[in-house]
Parts: sequence; C-alpha cells; structure tokens
Amino acid sequence: MSLTRNEIKFIKSLQDKKTREAEKLFVVEGIKPVSELLMHSNFKIKAIYTTRDQAISIPDQLPHHRISETELERISGLVSPNVVLAVAEMPEPSEDLPNEDLTLILDEIKDPGNLGTILRTADWFGIQHVTASFNSVDLFNPKVVQASMGAVFRVNYKTKDLINYLTELKKAGYELVGADLEGVSIYDFKASSKTAIVMGSESHGISPEVKKLLNKSVTIPKFGKTESLNVAIATGIILGIIRGN
Amino acid sequence: MSLTRNEIKFIKSLQDKKTREAEKLFVVEGIKPVSELLMHSNFKIKAIYTTRDQAISIPDQLPHHRISETELERISGLVSPNVVLAVAEMPEPSEDLPNEDLTLILDEIKDPGNLGTILRTADWFGIQHVTASFNSVDLFNPKVVQASMGAVFRVNYKTKDLINYLTELKKAGYELVGADLEGVSIYDFKASSKTAIVMGSESHGISPEVKKLLNKSVTIPKFGKTESLNVAIATGIILGIIRGN
Repeated sequence: MSLTRNEIKFIKSLQDKKTREAEKLFVVEGIKPVSELLMHSNFKIKAIYTTRDQAISIPDQLPHHRISETELERISGLVSPNVVLAVAEMPEPSEDLPNEDLTLILDEIKDPGNLGTILRTADWFGIQHVTASFNSVDLFNPKVVQASMGAVFRVNYKTKDLINYLTELKKAGYELVGADLEGVSIYDFKASSKTAIVMGSESHGISPEVKKLLNKSVTIPKFGKTESLNVAIATGIILGIIRGN
Repeated sequence: MSLTRNEIKFIKSLQDKKTREAEKLFVVEGIKPVSELLMHSNFKIKAIYTTRDQAISIPDQLPHHRISETELERISGLVSPNVVLAVAEMPEPSEDLPNEDLTLILDEIKDPGNLGTILRTADWFGIQHVTASFNSVDLFNPKVVQASMGAVFRVNYKTKDLINYLTELKKAGYELVGADLEGVSIYDFKASSKTAIVMGSESHGISPEVKKLLNKSVTIPKFGKTESLNVAIATGIILGIIRGN
C-alpha cells in the first residue's frame, strides 16, 4: 500500500509546532524511540510506518503500514531516516504539582537537543516532573523526542508561567535552588526533603524575576579556564552530585 | 575588497577533514569562538573575515578582510553565519604523556557535538589531556570547534592507538578506570593520585581489548527508567563527582 500525497503532506506537517498543537499529534522516528513508545509509554499511537516489518514488533491491533524507503524519506524529518516512523497522540500534561524529593525547573531552554538530553538525564535520576518557562522549546519537537531517548514518554514536562508555578512550589514546601556562578559550592550543598533545582539559559542565566524567588543558589566549582558549562552538562552534574548526598 | 571565487572555494573546502589535514588549516566561526582564538590561544591565525569591524577587536598585524554578509554565507559552514570567520593553523599535538592527577580517554567518539561538549567540560574541570581512539572524530571538525566554546584551543586532544597509549599510561603510574554499567558506584570511588577515566561509545561501550587493560570500573547509579546517559553527560557527572572527592 503506498501513501497518498495528502498523507505524506500531513505527516510532514507535524514537523511544525503549530500543526502539532492544532492536531495534538507528533512524530517519533527510529527503532529505539519507537520501541520505547510501544513498550514503555501509555501514549496512544495513531499509525506506524515501517520499511521492514521484522525490525520492530508491532502489536496487531495497531494500524501499521509497510512503506518504501523513498516514502519514509518523504515523511521523515531526519537527514538519515531509520526504518520506522510513528504518529502518536500528545497526552494532556498532568496539572498536579510534583510531590517528590527533587524536581527540575528550566528557565528558558531554547535548544531542543539540550532539552531532550536534560529529560533523559532527569529520567535517569528518577525525576518525574520537569517544568520550563513558556518561552522554552516544546516537548514534541522532533529533535527533543530524538535526544530524549524515550524520556519524553515518561517524564512529565510542561511549560508554565514560572513566577506563579515557583510560588506554588514554595507554598507546597519546596526549597527553590538556582544554579548560577555565585552560589555555594554544590559539593557543600545538602538538599532539603523537597528541592526544586532551577537552571537558567546558557546565554542569560536565570531571569531576574525568577532569581528573586530563590531560597539559595549553588555553583559547580571551576578548576580550569572555560567560561561556562553547557546547560545539559551542568544539570547532569548537579543532579548527579545531589543524588550522591 | 571582495573575495575571489578561488578564495571562497578554498575556505569552504576546509569543512572537509581530508583538506584540513592536507592544508593543516581549520575554520573558527562566530564572535565568541574567534575571540577565544584571539585572546586565549597560541594558535597561529592565517586570516580573519568579518562583516562588521567593530564586532571584534582584531590586532592590526593580523590579516583581516571586511566582507559582505553574502560572502560570509558563501564561506561559512553554519546554517546561520555569525559576523566573523577565522582560518587558523592546526598545531602539532604534544606527544608528552599527561602528568596530572586526572586525564580523560575516549574510546570511539563519533559525534562532533559530544566531543566539543566533552572538551568544554574537561577544560572546566582543569583536565589538560584528552585522548581518543583513532576511529574518533577529529578536533578541528567545525562542529567540535563550535561546541567546545574555545576549549579546543586549550585542551591537548589527540587520537591514538589506545592499547599502546593506555599501556604507557599504566607504566607511568596511572590507574585506568572505565565507566560502564557494572562497576562500583561512582559515589564510593576514591581516585588515586593519577587517574585516567575511560569513556566508551554510547552504542558499544568500551571495546573488549581496552576493557582488558582497565584496573577497575565505575558506574553512575540509576534512579529512574532511562536505559543510558548521553556520553557527554556521563563524562560531566563522573568528572564532577571525582573533583568533589
């Protein structure tokens, strides 16, 4: 069965944020991410397109289409499409406040690769809620999905007005801890029973309005000469050190 | 002064590894990386091309050319070229063995963004030598230069036959410590006075021949569900935790 011109056009249009949000659908590509979607998520899958039926085990009740390499290239957003593409429904993000020892807040994260990597890292360290400012990249951006290695299906990510959200977290007993260049050493930091780590953007740091709400700030001590760390790396180091305390 | 067709072709050809190695020249792009090249490196600069003279302070004795936005687009390897491009000479990497408390070994690192980020992180933690297996990406790949944020000008990076190199390090008193999924917890690890951290590739881990040479292995404990960490993130967490011990 070959795809119609309209089907191709529709799937390809999901590369665009506006279309994704209007249709409440997004694209997952590659054997590993699609396997994660099938095996380790509760997401509803609308259709699966694959060039090799054997490459991935697809439950019979799911609509799936065998397509040609050329067709896959036409619907894919990747430079090198990889065997399978799924169209899945975006779930409604949970509006519950986190109720765990550690949660992560991102103040303006624009790079989709960084967001995907941060979600993968948060998932590794058992963090269930990651919340970003409205001006951040959306969860279902194909590059976020790709870099997250399946974490987009498990971590509860939403974008929020951070001032309101952080005020609510504070009321719920969270200590708000920002990462900046002038805080106490992360090596001397003891997390309280409810900690929200706030990461700023690589270019502007934490915004001044958010800074006012923080209870304290922590710093990764520098031993060499480079001016700054990548935001995903800094997040990984801070979470890693906190989890060891 | 406008660029000749041959000049444009030559600069553009430095995007290619073979040409870079034949010419011993590479390209640095953007205000921040070129400033790092000018201010914090001993690299010889062959020429600087800029669309705005005021954007960056260039010493008078350096050959520099005012070019148009269109010309910059034609010589740039970036999707969005940014004001300035420099052509610099590749230095000969130092053949000295490291003689510091901590050094980093990469066994097959293929992704240039990951290598650049790892060098930036190594530089932050004061690591002077990073050595990778021959099948790794080269230092002067434009994406490595970009992601390293200037660390390529400071960190001594070379590719080597790792079996020979690790054997030499061992003779020089280094303990060889691999990162894998079955080692002792990094939280319980005490680095000896000379430690070489060995990171494997994300897809295949540390190669079996290298594994045989290791003195021990360490693991970042997992608290959640994701299968693995990005290699640059794992490197950052391990270096960060070791520097805190």
